[in-house]
Amino acid sequence: MRWSQAFIPTLRESPADAEAVSHKLLVRSGFIRQLGAGSYTMLPLGQRVRLKIAGIIRDEINAIGGQEMMLPTLHPAEIWRKSDRYELMGDNLFKLQDRKGGDLVLGMTEEEIFAMLATELFSYRDLPQIWYQMHTKFRDEPRPKSGLLRVREFTMKDSYTLDIDAPGLDSGFDKHYDAYKRIFARMGLEAVDVQASSGAMGGKESSEFMVRSNAGEDWIVTCETCDYRANVEKATSALDEVDDGDPGALERFPTPGLRTIRALAEAHPEIASPERQIKTLVYIVDDEPVLVLLRGDHELQEQKLADETAAVMSRPGQVDEIRELLGADPGSLGAVAVDGPRIIADHALQGRVNMTTGANEDDWHYQGVSVERDIPVTKWADLRAVTSGERCIRDGELLELWKGIEVGHIFKLGTKFSEAFGAYVQDEDGISHPIIMGSYGIGLERGMAAIVEANNDENGIIWPVSVAPFEVLITVVRPDDEATMASANRLYDDFDSAGVEVLLDDRAERPGVKFADSELIGIPFRVTVGPKGVDAGVAEVAHRRGMVKSELPLDEVVATLSETVAAARFGI
Amino acid sequence: MRWSQAFIPTLRESPADAEAVSHKLLVRSGFIRQLGAGSYTMLPLGQRVRLKIAGIIRDEINAIGGQEMMLPTLHPAEIWRKSDRYELMGDNLFKLQDRKGGDLVLGMTEEEIFAMLATELFSYRDLPQIWYQMHTKFRDEPRPKSGLLRVREFTMKDSYTLDIDAPGLDSGFDKHYDAYKRIFARMGLEAVDVQASSGAMGGKESSEFMVRSNAGEDWIVTCETCDYRANVEKATSALDEVDDGDPGALERFPTPGLRTIRALAEAHPEIASPERQIKTLVYIVDDEPVLVLLRGDHELQEQKLADETAAVMSRPGQVDEIRELLGADPGSLGAVAVDGPRIIADHALQGRVNMTTGANEDDWHYQGVSVERDIPVTKWADLRAVTSGERCIRDGELLELWKGIEVGHIFKLGTKFSEAFGAYVQDEDGISHPIIMGSYGIGLERGMAAIVEANNDENGIIWPVSVAPFEVLITVVRPDDEATMASANRLYDDFDSAGVEVLLDDRAERPGVKFADSELIGIPFRVTVGPKGVDAGVAEVAHRRGMVKSELPLDEVVATLSETVAAARFGI
Repeated sequence: MRWSQAFIPTLRESPADAEAVSHKLLVRSGFIRQLGAGSYTMLPLGQRVRLKIAGIIRDEINAIGGQEMMLPTLHPAEIWRKSDRYELMGDNLFKLQDRKGGDLVLGMTEEEIFAMLATELFSYRDLPQIWYQMHTKFRDEPRPKSGLLRVREFTMKDSYTLDIDAPGLDSGFDKHYDAYKRIFARMGLEAVDVQASSGAMGGKESSEFMVRSNAGEDWIVTCETCDYRANVEKATSALDEVDDGDPGALERFPTPGLRTIRALAEAHPEIASPERQIKTLVYIVDDEPVLVLLRGDHELQEQKLADETAAVMSRPGQVDEIRELLGADPGSLGAVAVDGPRIIADHALQGRVNMTTGANEDDWHYQGVSVERDIPVTKWADLRAVTSGERCIRDGELLELWKGIEVGHIFKLGTKFSEAFGAYVQDEDGISHPIIMGSYGIGLERGMAAIVEANNDENGIIWPVSVAPFEVLITVVRPDDEATMASANRLYDDFDSAGVEVLLDDRAERPGVKFADSELIGIPFRVTVGPKGVDAGVAEVAHRRGMVKSELPLDEVVATLSETVAAARFGI
Repeated sequence: MRWSQAFIPTLRESPADAEAVSHKLLVRSGFIRQLGAGSYTMLPLGQRVRLKIAGIIRDEINAIGGQEMMLPTLHPAEIWRKSDRYELMGDNLFKLQDRKGGDLVLGMTEEEIFAMLATELFSYRDLPQIWYQMHTKFRDEPRPKSGLLRVREFTMKDSYTLDIDAPGLDSGFDKHYDAYKRIFARMGLEAVDVQASSGAMGGKESSEFMVRSNAGEDWIVTCETCDYRANVEKATSALDEVDDGDPGALERFPTPGLRTIRALAEAHPEIASPERQIKTLVYIVDDEPVLVLLRGDHELQEQKLADETAAVMSRPGQVDEIRELLGADPGSLGAVAVDGPRIIADHALQGRVNMTTGANEDDWHYQGVSVERDIPVTKWADLRAVTSGERCIRDGELLELWKGIEVGHIFKLGTKFSEAFGAYVQDEDGISHPIIMGSYGIGLERGMAAIVEANNDENGIIWPVSVAPFEVLITVVRPDDEATMASANRLYDDFDSAGVEVLLDDRAERPGVKFADSELIGIPFRVTVGPKGVDAGVAEVAHRRGMVKSELPLDEVVATLSETVAAARFGI
C-alpha cells in the first residue's frame, strides 16, 4: 500500500475525553474512530490488526480441535428466558421487538449454543466437541470508556467444550488454558492467569488472563513469592491471629454521636479498636434483606456476596429500609439476637469474642460480644476485600495488588445450562447425562487495546510483528527525487515479492512529519530512503522498539529484513 | 479433520417448510441450522464455505485498492434521521433504545460511512478512496424464507468509492464491475449484470448481478439476441404501433355491472378491447393521492412508480379514499377532466385516441377519449411491467423473462448523501465539491445459497473447489481393518502436508451411509480406501461433479489430486 493513497488519518491531538493510553494512541494514529458512546469504527490500519488477532486465535483454537461456527447475534428472547438470564442481565442486555411484536435481544453471550445442544447431540459418540465463533457481542454498558477497553459492541471469540464427564471437561479446559497462553504470547502480551469469580454465568473453576496496566479495571492480588494469583473479586489472604482474651459478658453502653468505626474506635480505644468491631451492612438480595457482617477494619467485596448468594440483583439497603428492619440508622446497627433476616458473616469473625457492635438503637452499642454465642449467623463466608500488605494464604508472604486488563476468561460452566435446556446425551449403557460445558472467551478489540497499553512509548505505538498492520514501512525522504523514488519502489516491489507486508510513505510531506507519523503508527521496521543514501547505495533501517538504527547496503535490505520479519511473525 | 470427531449433523429429511433446493440441501447436509425466523447458524462446514467466500471477496476488492474497515452495527438513530431514511425504511429497520433512552437502529446499510466522510476527508488529495467492510446487516423482513436467500441477519460486503468528480466515480464503478465478475466466477457462479432500480438508496446507474434460479425472487428480462438485460423493476420493451383511426368525440355510455377490463372488453369488443382501454389506479404516495394510468392490457410495475415519484411510502388507495377522491368505485374510474390529483400516465398511452375509460360514476364509461386532449396528464413515465413475448427496445427481437437470485449490486449513488451529511472536499483551486459516491454490495450467505442452487444434483451439493468446505474426502470403507486405516491415515497426512484440505471419513458406519453422506455434503473429490483396493495398491477417485470414477495407484493419489485441486482452487 502507498500511504499517499491510503486512509490513515493521523491526528496531532488525542481525543479530549481520552484517558487510557491505548485510546489516545489508537485514535491519534488513525486506527479507530468513535461513532457513538462505546462504539468504534476500525479504520483500515485497525482492521488489519484486528484480522491478524483473529488469525492467531483461529490458528490456535483450530489446533486444539475447535470447529468454527457463526451464530446469529439477534436472539429470540425465549432462549434468554429459558436460561433465566433475560431479567438477570438487566439493563446490560439490549432488548427490542420485531415488526410482529416478537421479543428479541442482542446477544451478550452465546445463549444460542445452549439451545442447539438439545436438538443436535444425543450420544456419547457425538462428544467431545469444541465449538467456537468470532462474532459481535453487545452490552449496554452504563459507562462506556477507555476507547476499546469498555464498549457496547465488540467481537468476541467464544468457545465451548462439550463433554459427557468431568475428566473430559478438565481436558477441554486444559487445552484452552494452553491455547490461551500461546495466543497471548503470539499477540505480544504478557498475560497471567488468575483465579476469578465466574460471575453471572455461574460455574466452578474460573480463570482470567490479565495484562498489567493502569488502564485496567480489575484489581489483581498476587503473592510475591509463590504462584497465588487471584482477582480481588475472588482473592483471599491470611489474617494475623487475634488474642481477644476470655469471653466477657454482653453489655450495652451509650455511644452518643459515634456513628463510624473510626469515631467509636477513637472514643473507646480499649474495647473498640477497628479489628475488634463488627461492621453490620444491610443488603437487599433479590428483594430479601440480608445482614452482612465484617470486621470493622475490613471492606466488603461485593462480587463475593453476589457469588455467595447466587444473587440475580443485589444492592445496599436504603436508610428507610434499614430502619424498618432493625429499628436504627446506619452507625448503630448490629446483629446480636436479631431474628428474621439471613445473616452472612465473614470468616474473620469466626470464633471472635469481646467484640463491639451496634445495638440497633441509635447511639447505643454492645461490648463483650461473643460472635458465635450472641449472633445467629446463618452462614460463614469469604466476603472481605483483600488489601495490599496482607499475606498470602499459601506461603504467608506479602501480597501485591495491581491493576489489570482482562484479555481472556476460561471457566468450567458445568451442567447448569444443559439442564435448563434439556441437553442430555446417553452413555454406552443408555444412561442419560447432562452435557458438561466449559466456556472460554477473548475480546478481540480489547486485546488490541491491551497490546497498545503494553507496547508504546512517548512517540506512539510499538506493534509486535505478529499483529502489526504492516511489517515494514519505507519512508521516502524526497519522493520528488527520481532516483530516490525509483529505489524506494524497487524495495517496495521486492518486499512485496518476498511476502513482507509493506507500506510505502510516498507522501509529499516534510521528513519531520513522516518520521513522527512513522513512530506514531508503530510499524516494527522502518527503512528510510533518501537521495544521500541512494547515492551511497545504503538505506537506514530502524527498529521501532528502542529505535535502534543501522545502515544497510540497499541490495541487502530486503533479504535481511525479510528474514528478521519471518522469524518474528509467529512470536513477539 | 476426522469425521468421527467433527460436527457434521446430516439429516435424512429436509425441513418441512423448505422449498428452495439450497435451503433443503444446506440443512440436510449439516451446513446450517435455523435459530428463528430468517435467522441461521453457520455450522462448521457452512462457516468454512462462508470464510472462503469472504476470502475471495477480500482478495478481489483489495486488488482494486479497497481498504477494509469495520463499522459498528448498532447506529445512533440520528444519522438515519439525517439521511432521511429513519422513517423511509419503515418496519424493515430494527429500532431500539439504550438504557438512557437513546434511539438506536441496527444497520441495514452503512449510514455511518456517510457520517464519517464529513469529518475525515477535506481535500482532493484525500481522494479517491475505496472503503469496504464485511459485517452483519439486519433487515426485519416481513416474510423471511428460502433458507439463506431471504433472512433477517446476514453478512454483507459493502464497499464505497469516494471521488471528487464523475470520471472518478465511473472508474471506481468499472473497477467494481470487473471485480464482481471475477468474484462470482471464482465462486462458481454464472452471474449476469442487469440494469436495476436503485431503490430506496437513490442514485443513477445501477446494475444487479443475477444468477438464474427458480428460487430467485427477481424477474429478469433479457433479449434473446442482443445484450439488453434488465430487472423487471427497470425493464422496458418495444410496443407494436396501434392504429386508433381519427380522433372521435368524447361520449358517455352506460356500462351496468361492467367492472373489469375483461368484462367491458367482452361486452363492447368494437370500442373497448383491452389495449384500447385506459386502466386508472389510485395510489397514495407519501399521503398524497396520485392517479396512475396504464393501457388496459398492461400491469403496473410498482417499483417504477416508486422510483418515478421518489416516494418514501406508496400504497394502493382504499375503496373509501378512492370514492371520496373520484366519486366512484374501482371499475368505473377515469381521469377525464379530473382536477386536483397528480396524474402519471404510462408512455404507452401517449398519442392514443378513441380510447375507453371509466367516467367516475358507477356503471358509466367514456368512449372516444383522446388521451392528450381529454386528460390533464401531469407526467408521462415508464410504469408498466414487461411481460414475456414482448420485444426488445434495442433490436426488436423477442424478450425472455426468467427468475434470478440477486447476488450483487453496484450503483452510482452520486452526491445525495454527501450533501445531506455536509461531506465536501476542496479541489486544487480551493473550490468545494460534494464527494461523489458509488455503492457496491454482495451478500455472503446469499451467495453461498446461490452456489448451491446452481451446483447440485438429486444426491446433494456439488461444491466448486474454490469454496468447498474441504477439497478432498477420504472415505474409509472398513475403518476396523488395520491395513486399510493405516493407508487412509497415510493419505490423510500426505494431503495435509501437500496443503490440501482433507476430511477423513473414519466413522464406523456402513459404506452406503458414507457414500450417501459424501454426495450430500458435496466435497469435490472423494478417495475411497478399502481392504480390496489396499491389497491391490489402488484407491478409487471420484469427482463429485458427474461422479466420474477412476482407479489410481495408492502412491499416486496425493500427487495427482493435489495438482488437480491446486489448478481448480482459483476458479471453478
